[in-house]
Amino acid sequence: MPTTPSPADHFTFGLWTVGWTGNDPFGVPTRPDLDPVEAVHKLAELGAYGVTFHDDDLIPFGSSNQDRELILKRFTSAIQDAGLKIPMITTNLFSHPVFKDGGFSSNDRSVRRFALRKVLRNIDLAAQLGAETFVMWGGREGAEYDGSKDLSAALDRMREGVDTAAGYIKEQGYGLKIALEPKPNEPRGDILLPTVGHALAFIAELENGDIVGLNPETGHEQMAGLNYTHGIAQALWAGKLFHIDLNGQKSIKYDQDLVFGHGDLTSAFFTVDLLENGFPGGGPKYEGPRHFDYKPSRTDGYDGVWASAAANMSMYLLLKERAQAFRADPEVREALEASGVFELGEPTLAAGETAADLIADSASFEDFDAGAAAQRNFGFIRLNQLALEHLLGAR
Amino acid sequence: MPTTPSPADHFTFGLWTVGWTGNDPFGVPTRPDLDPVEAVHKLAELGAYGVTFHDDDLIPFGSSNQDRELILKRFTSAIQDAGLKIPMITTNLFSHPVFKDGGFSSNDRSVRRFALRKVLRNIDLAAQLGAETFVMWGGREGAEYDGSKDLSAALDRMREGVDTAAGYIKEQGYGLKIALEPKPNEPRGDILLPTVGHALAFIAELENGDIVGLNPETGHEQMAGLNYTHGIAQALWAGKLFHIDLNGQKSIKYDQDLVFGHGDLTSAFFTVDLLENGFPGGGPKYEGPRHFDYKPSRTDGYDGVWASAAANMSMYLLLKERAQAFRADPEVREALEASGVFELGEPTLAAGETAADLIADSASFEDFDAGAAAQRNFGFIRLNQLALEHLLGAR
Amino acid sequence: MPTTPSPADHFTFGLWTVGWTGNDPFGVPTRPDLDPVEAVHKLAELGAYGVTFHDDDLIPFGSSNQDRELILKRFTSAIQDAGLKIPMITTNLFSHPVFKDGGFSSNDRSVRRFALRKVLRNIDLAAQLGAETFVMWGGREGAEYDGSKDLSAALDRMREGVDTAAGYIKEQGYGLKIALEPKPNEPRGDILLPTVGHALAFIAELENGDIVGLNPETGHEQMAGLNYTHGIAQALWAGKLFHIDLNGQKSIKYDQDLVFGHGDLTSAFFTVDLLENGFPGGGPKYEGPRHFDYKPSRTDGYDGVWASAAANMSMYLLLKERAQAFRADPEVREALEASGVFELGEPTLAAGETAADLIADSASFEDFDAGAAAQRNFGFIRLNQLALEHLLGAR
Amino acid sequence: MPTTPSPADHFTFGLWTVGWTGNDPFGVPTRPDLDPVEAVHKLAELGAYGVTFHDDDLIPFGSSNQDRELILKRFTSAIQDAGLKIPMITTNLFSHPVFKDGGFSSNDRSVRRFALRKVLRNIDLAAQLGAETFVMWGGREGAEYDGSKDLSAALDRMREGVDTAAGYIKEQGYGLKIALEPKPNEPRGDILLPTVGHALAFIAELENGDIVGLNPETGHEQMAGLNYTHGIAQALWAGKLFHIDLNGQKSIKYDQDLVFGHGDLTSAFFTVDLLENGFPGGGPKYEGPRHFDYKPSRTDGYDGVWASAAANMSMYLLLKERAQAFRADPEVREALEASGVFELGEPTLAAGETAADLIADSASFEDFDAGAAAQRNFGFIRLNQLALEHLLGAR
Repeated sequence: MPTTPSPADHFTFGLWTVGWTGNDPFGVPTRPDLDPVEAVHKLAELGAYGVTFHDDDLIPFGSSNQDRELILKRFTSAIQDAGLKIPMITTNLFSHPVFKDGGFSSNDRSVRRFALRKVLRNIDLAAQLGAETFVMWGGREGAEYDGSKDLSAALDRMREGVDTAAGYIKEQGYGLKIALEPKPNEPRGDILLPTVGHALAFIAELENGDIVGLNPETGHEQMAGLNYTHGIAQALWAGKLFHIDLNGQKSIKYDQDLVFGHGDLTSAFFTVDLLENGFPGGGPKYEGPRHFDYKPSRTDGYDGVWASAAANMSMYLLLKERAQAFRADPEVREALEASGVFELGEPTLAAGETAADLIADSASFEDFDAGAAAQRNFGFIRLNQLALEHLLGAR
Repeated sequence: MPTTPSPADHFTFGLWTVGWTGNDPFGVPTRPDLDPVEAVHKLAELGAYGVTFHDDDLIPFGSSNQDRELILKRFTSAIQDAGLKIPMITTNLFSHPVFKDGGFSSNDRSVRRFALRKVLRNIDLAAQLGAETFVMWGGREGAEYDGSKDLSAALDRMREGVDTAAGYIKEQGYGLKIALEPKPNEPRGDILLPTVGHALAFIAELENGDIVGLNPETGHEQMAGLNYTHGIAQALWAGKLFHIDLNGQKSIKYDQDLVFGHGDLTSAFFTVDLLENGFPGGGPKYEGPRHFDYKPSRTDGYDGVWASAAANMSMYLLLKERAQAFRADPEVREALEASGVFELGEPTLAAGETAADLIADSASFEDFDAGAAAQRNFGFIRLNQLALEHLLGAR
Repeated sequence: MPTTPSPADHFTFGLWTVGWTGNDPFGVPTRPDLDPVEAVHKLAELGAYGVTFHDDDLIPFGSSNQDRELILKRFTSAIQDAGLKIPMITTNLFSHPVFKDGGFSSNDRSVRRFALRKVLRNIDLAAQLGAETFVMWGGREGAEYDGSKDLSAALDRMREGVDTAAGYIKEQGYGLKIALEPKPNEPRGDILLPTVGHALAFIAELENGDIVGLNPETGHEQMAGLNYTHGIAQALWAGKLFHIDLNGQKSIKYDQDLVFGHGDLTSAFFTVDLLENGFPGGGPKYEGPRHFDYKPSRTDGYDGVWASAAANMSMYLLLKERAQAFRADPEVREALEASGVFELGEPTLAAGETAADLIADSASFEDFDAGAAAQRNFGFIRLNQLALEHLLGAR
Repeated sequence: MPTTPSPADHFTFGLWTVGWTGNDPFGVPTRPDLDPVEAVHKLAELGAYGVTFHDDDLIPFGSSNQDRELILKRFTSAIQDAGLKIPMITTNLFSHPVFKDGGFSSNDRSVRRFALRKVLRNIDLAAQLGAETFVMWGGREGAEYDGSKDLSAALDRMREGVDTAAGYIKEQGYGLKIALEPKPNEPRGDILLPTVGHALAFIAELENGDIVGLNPETGHEQMAGLNYTHGIAQALWAGKLFHIDLNGQKSIKYDQDLVFGHGDLTSAFFTVDLLENGFPGGGPKYEGPRHFDYKPSRTDGYDGVWASAAANMSMYLLLKERAQAFRADPEVREALEASGVFELGEPTLAAGETAADLIADSASFEDFDAGAAAQRNFGFIRLNQLALEHLLGAR
């Protein structure tokens, strides 16, 4: 089968994914702790390209400097042995109780300083380990009650935090980019920068926004009922798709973090189609790692954990194969044409045409037969059926 | 009661709101057509400040120029008699079948040209009638199937359309601003620019973005499970809250367009608190009209329609009164203080402090007692209870 | 391909599906009216088994008796020519303004009487045309405001209406069963009997509940975020799955009525698996028609309409093929075994064992090693991956 | 203020509510453990009527019999000192890893036996402590993947478990009733018996269903976008509202367990209106405890915890006061009349009238002027505005 992954596929996993032991709001862990070094070797065996982690995933919160060094040494040596990369690092500003009202936007200034300092330290580590992307998920930046947060001040503090971190990266000459990860809610009632759109808009207000982009997660957008492929498309269009978190979610509910493709399968197909084949008419493409941010079901033991890691990769490869066949099919090409998909690439105004010219062109308005134009059969159902038949391997 | 509205309150209504006759996906109209002139007089009587409309609300699609002039004359004369303003106008690019795949982003270029031309014509009308804001709701700009739209091209065409319209406004020297209205879905499966965030991010990519901002609608954000007050706060923070559509929605479902306050009442309270009192620590404020975009329940006749128009305004005024009392209460002030709401206004870094300075400050990290800091009782429940008691008039 | 339908597949379509002309809350029809007779011939050509309709789909509301007879004559003659069946009929109690507050539960008693009378008349027609199922979708039975409906009285009136109709069927000796169709909202803010569960519970309170069951619709359950396959499973378990409405929906939003399989594809696979293959351990099975209740996208002309009708059937047949291969695969069988799927069929108590016996069995509690039992790897991820690979035709 | 609670108000709290220390999917506890004895005294001070608990809340899982007795002795003595009642007890079948695939419906039979045995033991304790209600929340009974559960077998096992427990209660002559608590999802992807409706329908299939009813939770229904007041109304109508879990939830998302009234305030008003004032036209009433099942925000310390406990009660009392004024207002009475709310209490058929009589009554159909009847102004907006003004204390 063509669904056996290799490092050339650039699949990466967070240590916290295969290492999730099953703690949830109504139950304690169902699996023993996983040694990060074991995770590294196992993922390498399965064909992964790299691993990623939060500082606290590897180095317990509050470790001494000496312990930290020992842990890092052992870990980087395992990474080297396994031949893996560390393309991304991120900071945990949500697990420890001190972050209960957030990190960068905690109402407590001493917490904000601590959070920012924790991030700066982790940026140094990211640079030291050769990471290219520094993800920031502000899961605790938010509120349950509208009265408990000055929202303008909160956004000011978020900007201050991100700009300071980005400025520090520049000053140090690190080759790092920051990728913000939006999420609408959970663990806070409402999280700041809840969607791809809000985070993109925030970046536009930054001083150092040039090295700040996004790390959109499949399930996070779907928790707001939004179309994930639309979300990453807008991020690509804005030149800001820096990293990607693939997983699965079924409808609007708590954050499920299922295996990629085990949520909305059709949406996953179109996500892979965009990542691998780009927009139908060309344009910006994503070149970064295919990073999985999921949780192996707590009903399963470690056999299930490794099966789930493999499942993410083989689902991706299977969908890639199907998406390539979809694009290559002449009947699809013809259907895309008939549906006007390529026609949307043509500017509405002719080259050099101005608003005044358009107004003067009576064919576009005064003499335009709207009733006749309304008859067009866009053929979207047929096109979608073709896509689904390719997805199902039925063509 | 202080809940009797006057023009000084700047309440405005779309002609399509009180004029909605009750057509829905499963039923035909339950009310006869409403003459826009009657709407104008009735709204004036009730204390409104102005009316707004889509071109086709007033002038039926396809009217001759002569009919158009007659209709406009009769209407503006009624407006003058009634002493109302027309602060906003918008274009209908969604009702006629020609727009079935959208206006600015239809896959059919001839439709895009027709749509843009319809907008330009309506901009002239807006300027002629003295409107300040030109709203664009792209309700049909979207798709049901991910394969039917080149999303990069679609965003290019949206940008082309909005930039052309904004450029035309500038060239003509009109005193107009454009306000985009986001919506996540309905009538399309996924609409482009689905939330406040996505629309703000889009504006950042425009050439003429300086005169383009937002017109967020209460229910539209809530249809994505997002916090409306958070949404308008981010728009304000970005200097882009140009207009506002107030109404009611209950949870994530079809677009309900209930009376303002008849959906999520607590959220409506905090919306009014922000609009009237601003952020707790100061910052940008909204100064535009309080515009209602709702639908009077189709179970009611015209008695109900006028009762509903009055209800929007008296709910707003009632909430304003409660929000003012909330802010003025010394116990609230003390609770805000205790919760750190004002503390969030303090920058995380001291004046002139750099990242390097922060790293050097061991009090912020090495010597910071995270465990002790984690003990802080933020008191958010008490603060919220105080807010609710003010909302309920129980203090 | 095995995806060419024939009458033996028992596919049926509502006249209102292919006949939907595209009216929606924001736009007028995009397609001309479809002659029911044309629909009949076209569906027969495509391989359908039968058609279904609301009274008003065929006979315009308010037609004279004479016109009604003429219409029926022409229609039944077309049905006979085409060799189709009419397995189901339903009554429209939602389109005409008189039903704006519902039919059986309108606050207006004269409307309730009219509604019940309309239903009785349609029951006679159903019997006359040889239908087996009489569907009742109470789309307008509900409220937007909790104060506007006495909910106990509303349920009493619903019971009175359904019991009267069912009693009439029995008295007349008709071979008809009633199937209630739940929906959570739209067009009302909250509809009575919002889910499969609520409707089943309601039936348990009926006098004539023996001939009353359910007609669950895919998208309606998914609009409440509920699992459709779980819903029809509970209906089957209760012996109440009398009819079925298949279509597609993407997440929680307005009622999309997409083509079957064009919404949540994985869920559609498991729905077909249950309908065709039954529960893994045996039990009640569904034997009725495979009825599609969907809307062809209004972006498409009649070419698209007929493509969409064909797509529903070929998607079903494709999923059926995949579901059969899934069940037949020995590796799947082994995985089901390992996951304990068949073990759930074993009663918890041994044959004849009482609560007292269980209490006396220390092996089940006092000597039970919960920690050891907790180690079991249920292997659910592997099993799901196997299912998805079968769905994708990749095994 | 009239919002000071007393035992006569019958307010009860779960030990797990004030005792929740703040563990969530992304963070560890933020508060130290709370001694149940302290909880008892504190709640008594605040005016509560009683406390409730899961077995494991009080007696750690796996305690020896001796420890169990000591803990119970100390606890019941505190209860007596404090003058509190224990009206309800429930069993934890979800926290320990052994329940990771459920209790009554785990695919593992040994787990099912253990779960049932744990329940039987806890029933004895409930009887011993004088509880009246035994709640069963099957939070882990469900699945993430449709293939991992034989749904018919799962419902069989649920029935076996509940029937065995109910049968045991009867055999022992205990004065206990069982109350099932539905929830749509979280911690499982889909939970069995997801809503009030599904659980009511399940009860109708039980052998010992006469002593089995419901314990609906505000937020659980709202997580499916369902109207909570509608849900408890249907439970009341079926004679099955045995207990109630009040809390707050904002829209469709993870289970928030906010303070009652801190979620959807208007819905909370109508819930209290129904609980305190009954249906407008009379009918079944709820007589049990007002039980709060919520979580104090983890941002707050124990000061906040006790403030939150008080807030639940004072919100309820405040809403009760407002609901009583609403019902007593003659203008409201008149508006209810005008809206036909009482008219819905009149049977659709006259006393003794049969279907045949209705058919013979041409006034109800042939001579009924549907167009004229459709003109009725139901006045629902006015009625809702009156309700909201009472809620806001503005009348």
